[in-house]
Amino acid sequence: MLIALFPGDGIGPEIIAQARRVLDALAIDGLTYEEGLVGGAAYKAVGHPLPPETLELAKRADAILFGAVGDPDCDSLERHLRPEQAILGLRKALGLFSNLRPAKVFPELADASALKKEVASAIDLLIVRETNGDVYFGEKGMRKTAEGLREGYDIMSYNEEQVRKIAHQGFQAARARRGKLCSVDKANVLETSQLWRDVMIEVSAEYPDVALSHMYVDNAAMQLVRNPGQFDVIVTGNMFGDILSDQASMCVGSIGMLASATLNDSNQGLYEPIHGSAPDIAGQGKANPLATVLSAAMMLRYSLNMPEQADRIEAAVAKALANGARSPDLGGGMTTVEMGDAVLAAL
Amino acid sequence: MLIALFPGDGIGPEIIAQARRVLDALAIDGLTYEEGLVGGAAYKAVGHPLPPETLELAKRADAILFGAVGDPDCDSLERHLRPEQAILGLRKALGLFSNLRPAKVFPELADASALKKEVASAIDLLIVRETNGDVYFGEKGMRKTAEGLREGYDIMSYNEEQVRKIAHQGFQAARARRGKLCSVDKANVLETSQLWRDVMIEVSAEYPDVALSHMYVDNAAMQLVRNPGQFDVIVTGNMFGDILSDQASMCVGSIGMLASATLNDSNQGLYEPIHGSAPDIAGQGKANPLATVLSAAMMLRYSLNMPEQADRIEAAVAKALANGARSPDLGGGMTTVEMGDAVLAAL
Ligand SMILES: CC(C)[C@H](C(=O)O)[C@@H](O)C(=O)O
Ligand SMILES: CC(C)[C@H](C(=O)O)[C@@H](O)C(=O)O
Repeated sequence: MLIALFPGDGIGPEIIAQARRVLDALAIDGLTYEEGLVGGAAYKAVGHPLPPETLELAKRADAILFGAVGDPDCDSLERHLRPEQAILGLRKALGLFSNLRPAKVFPELADASALKKEVASAIDLLIVRETNGDVYFGEKGMRKTAEGLREGYDIMSYNEEQVRKIAHQGFQAARARRGKLCSVDKANVLETSQLWRDVMIEVSAEYPDVALSHMYVDNAAMQLVRNPGQFDVIVTGNMFGDILSDQASMCVGSIGMLASATLNDSNQGLYEPIHGSAPDIAGQGKANPLATVLSAAMMLRYSLNMPEQADRIEAAVAKALANGARSPDLGGGMTTVEMGDAVLAAL
Repeated sequence: MLIALFPGDGIGPEIIAQARRVLDALAIDGLTYEEGLVGGAAYKAVGHPLPPETLELAKRADAILFGAVGDPDCDSLERHLRPEQAILGLRKALGLFSNLRPAKVFPELADASALKKEVASAIDLLIVRETNGDVYFGEKGMRKTAEGLREGYDIMSYNEEQVRKIAHQGFQAARARRGKLCSVDKANVLETSQLWRDVMIEVSAEYPDVALSHMYVDNAAMQLVRNPGQFDVIVTGNMFGDILSDQASMCVGSIGMLASATLNDSNQGLYEPIHGSAPDIAGQGKANPLATVLSAAMMLRYSLNMPEQADRIEAAVAKALANGARSPDLGGGMTTVEMGDAVLAAL
């Protein structure tokens, strides 16, 4: 099985290195690794954030372990050359449409949230976000109005097939958890959302064991603060999912702990921490590698079909935390490598 | 001066009645009132959520005091007949483009937030949301793809004139407060946001005394949980503003306390609590009227140019809270009318 390692920018290389150490420690037969250039690092090296060789490697790989992209040096580049295009380009080119973002509080870290401890402790949710459509990928551009004014536009849309695919992901995830699926949309305003809601209801007929509810996105943003413990699985579109999943991650308290998976139809997946490239602390050994280590666990579970190995990593992370492993973002003083050491010791 | 009273649905009539009592108690010369039908109530009476007489009254009035719309009986109506269309229709027809949503914690209520007390207490922000453009009002519909699939679509767009107008609102509000303006967009993905950001930067040249910053909407949703005290004024588009302002309101803890204004170019305004029609408690005297009372204060300040009278109402609300006035949403047992009594007593 081939794993593509895309460290990317900022703290990306440091955190990927620790995830690699943990994977190596599992001594799994038949795993091979190839590294590729993405993001600002790729732009600086070869002039494009997602070079052809990287894309080719991504397509060949069984799974991609991704660090982070984002580089302030690239902020004034044209949009198609910016680091973020690497992640958008990979999602689209590989059909990675199902972005899974679990949010759960480790008991040792419940105090880290800005939410009250009793509110934060109750969080155990999964956001299933569609990542191949919506206003992200519709026609877009700058044009002039009839009066000669500059106007920016982006077409939001979903077709029934796109919604059906992500609906099944949501229902199946809910079935494997607590059986509750909340579909988030803005059907009181958007036709895209009306179709979304119609199709969610159609698909629900195949999942009589899952309780489907609907919530407007503005209300969902409120409820995620008021009582996030009410949610099991949330399924939503690309734009709303971007906002709500970042909000939910912060409710958990420590964005340095949260992993994500983005899957396509053949369970090929891209695995990445949900935090960014943190250029301000890059190269200083301050980054928390646990979100990346946990992303590697998701990779073993979803793309490589090795649930026991995934469990081992997750248990080791929990144990390392219980043993007191704390990077600066968790209020401690351990370096990136020491955090890796702590997980290895717990394995 | 003519004030249009639009009670609407659910708890709307109860809360408007208390705001009216408070206004009457001020005994302001020359205020007249006319009532109009909106929302589900209007649909049930005359077949449309925003009947022509209501719209005509709205246009004639100096200000509109609005209760709430939303009625579960209307959920399966076609979109253009649903109660929410009343508010969207009024915003559009009257050019009400500048939606101001202040969020600040009353010291007595700091415990009510799901956020830790020290995080919630620091909140003192204003969201300036554009409400005449964006994906809300672009062309939208259902169509078939080339493969014959149902597809919903909505065009998101802003032109430079629309952005410039709301930019000035944001900069002026920031100038009158702590001098910090954070513009929220998704310029790494959306052309609409790129134009938004460009125009914000252009307009900033006229406000050298205001510090402009930019934040992606996903990060803003995180920061509003992590450290909402960092914000002074946030300016953003219609869709992102819908989500973030509801999120911010919940960070404050008690959505029953938050007022809003939506202004047009001639400072004609629509004033409403940010909470909804709460059909589950309608008619039971359980609704908290303070958000509506505070909306009436905003009306006196922004549309009727009576800042002293506005101050009097706001001071009376603060005093009523200090005296222990608590409706059920604030953890107390006072009825809607008793809450009104408490404000009157404090006046
Ligand atoms: C980098 C950016 C384009 C991306 C997105 O908006 O999808 C990121 O915020 C994410 O959530 O993965
Ligand atoms: C009722 C709805 C159309 C409206 C909106 O989305 O603007 C409401 O949520 C609001 O924020 O005023």
